[in-house]
Amino acid sequence: MQSVDKFEPLFRPQSIAVVGASRKKHKLGHVITANIVGAGYKGKLYPVNPAGGEILGQTVYASCADLPEAPDLGIVIVPRDRVLRSLVELGRAGAGAVLIITAGFRETGREGFELEQEMANIATRWGFVLMGPNSLGLINTGHHLNASIAAQVPPQGNIGFFSQSGALCSAILDWAMGEKLGFSKFLSLGNKAGISEADALEAMADDPGTSVIIGYLESLENGREFMRVAQKVTEKKPVIMIKAGTTQAGARATSSHTGSVSGSIEACRAAFAQSGIIQVDDIESLFDLARAFSCQPLPQGHNLTVITNSGGPGILAADACELSGLHLATPASQTITALRAALPAYASLYNPIDIIGDAGADRYRATLEAVVDDDMTHAVMVVLTPTASAQITETAQAVIDVAETSDKPMFACFMGDSRVSPGRDMLLDAGIPCYAYPEPAVRALSAMVRQQRWQNRPWPVEVCFRRDKGKAERLVRNALEIHLPELRQAQAFEMAMAYELPVPESKLARTSDQAARAAKKIGYPVALKIVSPHIDRRSGLDAVALNLETPQQVRSAFRDITSRVMRLRPGAYITGCLVQSMGPANAREVKIRLRQDPQFGPMVGFSMAGPAADILGDEAWRLAPLTLQDAQEIVREIRSYPLLRGVRGQPPVNFGALEDMVMTVSQMADDFPNIREAELNPVLVDEYGALVADLRLTVG
Amino acid sequence: MQSVDKFEPLFRPQSIAVVGASRKKHKLGHVITANIVGAGYKGKLYPVNPAGGEILGQTVYASCADLPEAPDLGIVIVPRDRVLRSLVELGRAGAGAVLIITAGFRETGREGFELEQEMANIATRWGFVLMGPNSLGLINTGHHLNASIAAQVPPQGNIGFFSQSGALCSAILDWAMGEKLGFSKFLSLGNKAGISEADALEAMADDPGTSVIIGYLESLENGREFMRVAQKVTEKKPVIMIKAGTTQAGARATSSHTGSVSGSIEACRAAFAQSGIIQVDDIESLFDLARAFSCQPLPQGHNLTVITNSGGPGILAADACELSGLHLATPASQTITALRAALPAYASLYNPIDIIGDAGADRYRATLEAVVDDDMTHAVMVVLTPTASAQITETAQAVIDVAETSDKPMFACFMGDSRVSPGRDMLLDAGIPCYAYPEPAVRALSAMVRQQRWQNRPWPVEVCFRRDKGKAERLVRNALEIHLPELRQAQAFEMAMAYELPVPESKLARTSDQAARAAKKIGYPVALKIVSPHIDRRSGLDAVALNLETPQQVRSAFRDITSRVMRLRPGAYITGCLVQSMGPANAREVKIRLRQDPQFGPMVGFSMAGPAADILGDEAWRLAPLTLQDAQEIVREIRSYPLLRGVRGQPPVNFGALEDMVMTVSQMADDFPNIREAELNPVLVDEYGALVADLRLTVG
Repeated sequence: MQSVDKFEPLFRPQSIAVVGASRKKHKLGHVITANIVGAGYKGKLYPVNPAGGEILGQTVYASCADLPEAPDLGIVIVPRDRVLRSLVELGRAGAGAVLIITAGFRETGREGFELEQEMANIATRWGFVLMGPNSLGLINTGHHLNASIAAQVPPQGNIGFFSQSGALCSAILDWAMGEKLGFSKFLSLGNKAGISEADALEAMADDPGTSVIIGYLESLENGREFMRVAQKVTEKKPVIMIKAGTTQAGARATSSHTGSVSGSIEACRAAFAQSGIIQVDDIESLFDLARAFSCQPLPQGHNLTVITNSGGPGILAADACELSGLHLATPASQTITALRAALPAYASLYNPIDIIGDAGADRYRATLEAVVDDDMTHAVMVVLTPTASAQITETAQAVIDVAETSDKPMFACFMGDSRVSPGRDMLLDAGIPCYAYPEPAVRALSAMVRQQRWQNRPWPVEVCFRRDKGKAERLVRNALEIHLPELRQAQAFEMAMAYELPVPESKLARTSDQAARAAKKIGYPVALKIVSPHIDRRSGLDAVALNLETPQQVRSAFRDITSRVMRLRPGAYITGCLVQSMGPANAREVKIRLRQDPQFGPMVGFSMAGPAADILGDEAWRLAPLTLQDAQEIVREIRSYPLLRGVRGQPPVNFGALEDMVMTVSQMADDFPNIREAELNPVLVDEYGALVADLRLTVG
Repeated sequence: MQSVDKFEPLFRPQSIAVVGASRKKHKLGHVITANIVGAGYKGKLYPVNPAGGEILGQTVYASCADLPEAPDLGIVIVPRDRVLRSLVELGRAGAGAVLIITAGFRETGREGFELEQEMANIATRWGFVLMGPNSLGLINTGHHLNASIAAQVPPQGNIGFFSQSGALCSAILDWAMGEKLGFSKFLSLGNKAGISEADALEAMADDPGTSVIIGYLESLENGREFMRVAQKVTEKKPVIMIKAGTTQAGARATSSHTGSVSGSIEACRAAFAQSGIIQVDDIESLFDLARAFSCQPLPQGHNLTVITNSGGPGILAADACELSGLHLATPASQTITALRAALPAYASLYNPIDIIGDAGADRYRATLEAVVDDDMTHAVMVVLTPTASAQITETAQAVIDVAETSDKPMFACFMGDSRVSPGRDMLLDAGIPCYAYPEPAVRALSAMVRQQRWQNRPWPVEVCFRRDKGKAERLVRNALEIHLPELRQAQAFEMAMAYELPVPESKLARTSDQAARAAKKIGYPVALKIVSPHIDRRSGLDAVALNLETPQQVRSAFRDITSRVMRLRPGAYITGCLVQSMGPANAREVKIRLRQDPQFGPMVGFSMAGPAADILGDEAWRLAPLTLQDAQEIVREIRSYPLLRGVRGQPPVNFGALEDMVMTVSQMADDFPNIREAELNPVLVDEYGALVADLRLTVG
């Protein structure tokens, strides 16, 4: 991690050396020089080329050694095999930062990857910031800096953008121009040999000109570091990311494109959720959200009022609200009174407020004024279709005027193309996001609600539970020593007890009479399970009996189990049977998992027991360590959550007990990084508490 | 249902009377007259207005009675209270069709609704086709007819559009202009007092100028009729619909907007699925799909090859493919050989084929030529980002050239705005759909794959099962006569047996000894259930014992159950207990439901037993009667399907047995429309067969 000041020469250089600058117009070494000049860069510009002469009126220096001063920023755009030499020369000349445009490294294979490591070493040795290689360059609109090979400079604004893909950058620049989206910084990170996505995030976090950060990622270089930075950044600014490769087909394409080890899809999604990053699934949404965040305040709640001159789009907006988790505000009675006075009798006063196709701008204005101060409304969306009576620019003006009197976010949806575009342009110029359809407007607002909740969430509470760490250590060490990565059931339960996880009361019985006595002590019903050092749960033996209710049943089950094992595994030593309480009768069954992600390390999953997690994908994940809030979220965000809350008069489960158990598993991962996998399955939970009925633990 | 010839005067009138035509420019009566003239209408035009004189060079007639001939089409645009009179006059004058633009009827309440019924009566009496009221009008580009109050006429093309919402029509027209989408017909159905969505569909089905039909619906007037028509239409042409009000919030907004009874969301979705309609969720998708269908052939399979000059969008395309159910084609080995010869060493030959950012048009062309004839590829998508080396128009030309040599669908995704738009325009003009992002292109292709499968699906097989209809009739009649809408369990099982549904073997036992004997005959394990005319399953008595394995257990369960009932319901007559086989031990449990939709009538639902259907919404529905294909689909489209196919080495269930059971329930609904509800739950299914372990039936 580099300190923020170090980015100064990269983002706001007072002098730039372009190593590989060229007089030939078709060469990138010319393009970038021309772009720097063309964007009105105010500092010193030193083209470097052994041929000397002049380029675009600037004196060309034969080598970096000849430069009149140490350049803040060096740009390398020489052929691949001269890049390392240029880097050293720039280092020797005292460059504060170096941007490598030249491509053909990691993306071409092993040798290129090693060259990049060499670049990073040179940067460290000479103490400069490195960006690239294979970068399209960078743009800082506030500094009139276009140090890129991109043909366009976006309008100045408050959106900061970074991307791993250079080609995508060029498409995004082109869209930004068309969409009139204003950018502060535009960074093409390229192969990330130096500056990573975490650095980019941190640099823009402290940039007063940037208030929204958007980014495109294929791989994460250091997931945990990225999370740590993102958590800080999202406290202040929204961060919206698109992560490519979120399906199996996409992940395969990613690894063939970037050659990097990617974390699992679940881990990445968890990392984004835990660091407050808003993840979107397509590029269009990236823009839709950036637009809203860039110019509107965050809403104070999730109640939206929709004003429309057409019923249909009102219905579509209502559909979108429900799908995005927003509510249609219920107007206060004085609002209804005001609306009744302002609107014709055939208007629909209830949200979506349909002011009917013959509405002119005045009717929009009166409706807006009636609803905007309603405390039940947190945001307003104005929908206009170009009916014969629609007054498009006048309606835009009404929206702009009313928005100025209010601190609630205001959205517009002017449906159509050239006919509504004069109104849309007015709205965009006035900083009111205007969409062509209701759905993206609603999705953008929903993201803003999430951001507001994130920024105002309770302080993260980390809980440390009492545990017998020494005992746990012995259990883990023992499993490692005897090369039995999966702990035996008894040891796994010992581990659970070391962490004070509630487990069913159980006793070892060596005879059927002992078993019956143990059952009486524990209380019926009980379960019986074979205990033998030679038999584990994968042996395929059905050496378990459940729901035993009488001493006779216990005795006969003991005999059944032991004789079956003796018959089927003649050599096995039989210690006896474990007599175990069956746990609460009407409990719901859940599953808590711990696994190691190749990129992010330990993560904890929560789901219902049974097929919900694997077949229906109804499982929620968080990266360890989990805060109290994480634990609270994880047990609530599965689709099956209503089962835990209780259906058909059933009481809700004891959520506190579940959350404690989830956090305990997280702590186990923290205490023992060599726990490869754990699965508490099933965990029985009812309104009184939770109980680990079975668990598996693998170390290694 | 009106015959297709009847639509001729509406769509291709040789003469038009505009009742309410006006000289005043701001009046709609002027706007529509001007629009008809402005679009170059070639027939006779008769403005009708008591004031007489001339409008736009056309002689004005004082009344319909004065017209020189019977007009093919009459347009009514007079104030609300004169509409009925104008209708009668047009009828008397011999109009073949009448279009009512005037609004203010059903949408304003009860009185308006009755006026619409009167309109329909007049239309029937005089034998003309009626469209509207509250219509924006209609456009037939092939006939140079703009009989609408819309300001714009879309370009001519092969897309037919109809919409219930007039205001949305105006927005859609405006988009169509911007998107260069060509339309054949454009119908604003308004309140549908005459022509319904089914009529609109039928009219466009037979229209040779229309090859794709798109529509926007809020409510369905007659769902079954619409389905019947749609099933025929979709055999030949794709029908893409957006149905507003698919969430609870949206449905509330719909009923306040249209005042119509809407069917359930599940019923509507099922109706669309069963009639081959492609349902989309937002307006943007409506356009994206219409574009693809309007100009490309259907693919012969689901394998897509992606060619890209940038890895990132390739990954996004791969993600979208997986989410849309498409596959990335595996190139044949000779294709790989050809690609290796044509592409630089650092290109990625495997799909998505990354030809790298320095690719010019020639590299695109060579790649296209190498893949387009590969039998493993059913469709090709070309992705271009505007890199410094990109040759945008030349690449567009290469795509156009290669597309001409092939009958496979070709898609383009030129990412960006103004820089790529020259290429995009070339592609659109040449009939190659070009999108700004990979996702919509993939979604459009996925819809085309679905359409191809639909058109080539096997002939629908209707199965009729043997059943004892007389016995079933007696059971239903008896339940109705004794005013007990929910059948007693024994009767419900009788009903199942009348339909030869497999049920567990069961015997009535009046004493504990009889019970033990019955159990022995049936085979252990068994279940015991109380039988009493005074006790039904809602009585809350726990009068059931499951999994009884020995005669002792059966006897003691019999005594437990009967004594518990005697204690808790002292007055109840106890017939005895039903001894029932427990069914297969390792079966999976599913649920089959029958219910009545207010709009569509009987429908059959399939899900896993337990919470999957209600909590996770994992339930599939089809409207009765179900064909064999419907039954095959319904048991496979739930997300839990892998559980039925078998996990962890489990064999698949007997799908044939399940499908038979689903179709039998459908037949039950057909035989007895007064079955209000049925629930077979659980149905036990394993690799050998399926068994109805319990069921409920309600008549009324």
